[in-house]
Amino acid sequence: VAKGDLEQISALFSHLVPEEIAELLEATPSKDRQVLWQAIPTDQQGEILTHTNEEVRANLLTTMESHEIAGLAEELETDDIVDIAQSLKPEEQEALLSSLDEQERTAVETALSFPEDTAGGLMSTDFISVRADIALDVVLRYLRQLGSLPASTTTLFVRDRDDHYVGTLKITDLLVHDGETLVEELVNTHIPAVRAYLPAKTVAHLFEKNDLISAPVVNDNNQILGRITIDDVVDIIREEAEHAQMASAGLDEDEDIFAPARRAAKRRTFWLGINLLTAIFASIVIGLFDASIEKVVALAVLMPIIASMGGIAGTQTATIVIRALATGKLAKSNSRSLLIKETTVGLFNGLIWAILTGTAVLLWFQDAALSAIFATAMLINLIAAAFAGAMIPLVLQRLKIDPALASGLMLTTVTDSLGFFVFLGLATIVLL
Amino acid sequence: VAKGDLEQISALFSHLVPEEIAELLEATPSKDRQVLWQAIPTDQQGEILTHTNEEVRANLLTTMESHEIAGLAEELETDDIVDIAQSLKPEEQEALLSSLDEQERTAVETALSFPEDTAGGLMSTDFISVRADIALDVVLRYLRQLGSLPASTTTLFVRDRDDHYVGTLKITDLLVHDGETLVEELVNTHIPAVRAYLPAKTVAHLFEKNDLISAPVVNDNNQILGRITIDDVVDIIREEAEHAQMASAGLDEDEDIFAPARRAAKRRTFWLGINLLTAIFASIVIGLFDASIEKVVALAVLMPIIASMGGIAGTQTATIVIRALATGKLAKSNSRSLLIKETTVGLFNGLIWAILTGTAVLLWFQDAALSAIFATAMLINLIAAAFAGAMIPLVLQRLKIDPALASGLMLTTVTDSLGFFVFLGLATIVLL
Repeated sequence: VAKGDLEQISALFSHLVPEEIAELLEATPSKDRQVLWQAIPTDQQGEILTHTNEEVRANLLTTMESHEIAGLAEELETDDIVDIAQSLKPEEQEALLSSLDEQERTAVETALSFPEDTAGGLMSTDFISVRADIALDVVLRYLRQLGSLPASTTTLFVRDRDDHYVGTLKITDLLVHDGETLVEELVNTHIPAVRAYLPAKTVAHLFEKNDLISAPVVNDNNQILGRITIDDVVDIIREEAEHAQMASAGLDEDEDIFAPARRAAKRRTFWLGINLLTAIFASIVIGLFDASIEKVVALAVLMPIIASMGGIAGTQTATIVIRALATGKLAKSNSRSLLIKETTVGLFNGLIWAILTGTAVLLWFQDAALSAIFATAMLINLIAAAFAGAMIPLVLQRLKIDPALASGLMLTTVTDSLGFFVFLGLATIVLL
Repeated sequence: VAKGDLEQISALFSHLVPEEIAELLEATPSKDRQVLWQAIPTDQQGEILTHTNEEVRANLLTTMESHEIAGLAEELETDDIVDIAQSLKPEEQEALLSSLDEQERTAVETALSFPEDTAGGLMSTDFISVRADIALDVVLRYLRQLGSLPASTTTLFVRDRDDHYVGTLKITDLLVHDGETLVEELVNTHIPAVRAYLPAKTVAHLFEKNDLISAPVVNDNNQILGRITIDDVVDIIREEAEHAQMASAGLDEDEDIFAPARRAAKRRTFWLGINLLTAIFASIVIGLFDASIEKVVALAVLMPIIASMGGIAGTQTATIVIRALATGKLAKSNSRSLLIKETTVGLFNGLIWAILTGTAVLLWFQDAALSAIFATAMLINLIAAAFAGAMIPLVLQRLKIDPALASGLMLTTVTDSLGFFVFLGLATIVLL
């Protein structure tokens, strides 16, 4: 992609929408990315930046001067300016803010005052609100004066005399009802307003549950501060769902796939360090039985199978539980049923694989005692794995630790150490 | 939740939206679920079914008679009837179809003729289209006659005299422009129509890229068949993102968390079987070196550490690559850069952990040769893990095998077997 000359690239870019160019930039190794970035017309750079992930955005912004960043902001709506401001260092943020006009600055400052992952941090301030006690004709005249409406406007927000949020008015109602009808006769009071401090994840669930296209954001006095639209929510939903996948490998969902190798290594090395501790723990368990292994080497040959099967079975259970927790389908009331169900699954699987692998070991090593020990250890470890796979995420959630992040390693510690311990322990008692 | 008496449950349900009841049903163990289901008013059951996942839906539908299912359909829009029909056995589907009126039946049959995961299978037929050559006043009169518009209607679809799709007309344009303006003066021809056979995943990307709320579905003649709205797309995006997470543990993203233990065990046992084969392969590798282990038991104690670190490092790389592939950010052109970057990360991490763990082994076993062998094996396995973690998903993708499903096990086979082989092999050469 990045080998052609700049003119060709510019020509190519002119056929793409900003989201596509953003994806292209994310998919481009760091050095070439800078070259591509220079080829993008300045008036499009801002829009494109709002579509890249955080790390790529920060990476591109570091190459720009303050006045260039201020230039970008001119083309953008306030929620997009907020996105960019959040990626800047404090002094650059200051410079950007001071380049905005009064009204925009206030809007951006309000949004910046809320944490990034709350409704307030997500909202834009381009919404239209009307008073409840006016007639549709008046609303229509007002809209005609405005000339154009913000994107994704399916409803207007309705407020009372004291600027409190009342409900929403469908744009389509303006079309099908008589002009003298009052707004308050048509207002839908069932669309909930979103409190500014509501976590982004909860906002996303609210949108999904109610099939919303947009929703108002209000302060503690129920006054409208801004608006969240479905396109922001789609981003949250994608990130939230990807979070579990990435977190289980100790990764961040905003990771730039072309981050410099040294930085990527540094970040991942922490996770390898934690894993080393759990692996050493399993090794110590093996070390307890080194005399047994010396006498029956088959133990060393077979022990990874028990640990590995336990790891897989536990991961299956944990994956289901983590997803159920993330989507809010598991709570105190039903977690006991799930624990019982998963342990029963572990029992079934344990029986099946104890018999099958026990037979295989008998054929391989021609040793009935070894085969019985192996089968017993397999059964115990698969049941324990299912129980731990369900229990660990549930306990972590209760302790307010992200289950997606920590479950995998804790689970492996259990299935490896327990698998080795049961197998080698039984063998030591029975064989020696 | 499910212990109270039925009246209480009914009272509770009357406060919930259908999506919430659906979540509640998914979160309820199988037996209690049937009890709850009976407590739901028949006129709400249909709407609720459209919000549950496929397995729970099929589970609930099996308990119902054909005429009850036909009853549900009366309350539903055509795309929701299609969802339900897709979960039915052929003869039940037939019965449901014959209970519909002419117009609905044609709409449902059209949608059923497309695979479930294509635009055609997702679309609903409740859309409004207008001719390009009429004036806004005429459109307004038409809409007033209809009285109410389908949910999420932000645009009307514009067609020409021969019913070909031309573009979209914003509802808000009707408000702010003069009544004599012709539709064709305002039509936005940049909103792409979706071909009926386009995969659902591609449809979702199209919506995300263009921030769409709805889009028309057309046949090969460019005639409008139906409409896809953002709420369907949100479901696709969630499923798509969850797919990778679930698939890596051999699970299906539509899995009912309260499926009967026996069925769940049967499904997961296949995955455990595949894993057993890879674990046995690793065991055979260990078996090659049983004489060495007999002489130096420390090898058996340390070997799981090498395999485990390789597994984690490889999984980190594979997770990033699988996500990049799923989101379309990796193609032929940039996969070489990624392979080089990830292998470099593997080299950095390999060096760090070879030095650290080598030192630890020296302190633990007081054996310089063993320490050097361990460090070398760690370095080699971490580099190989990074290379394999990037390579395996790329190759699987090229072979049209789902990388999310198969990468994990193939990777573990490499990191375990290679880790054991390099460590035990080096030890055999050097120590014996």
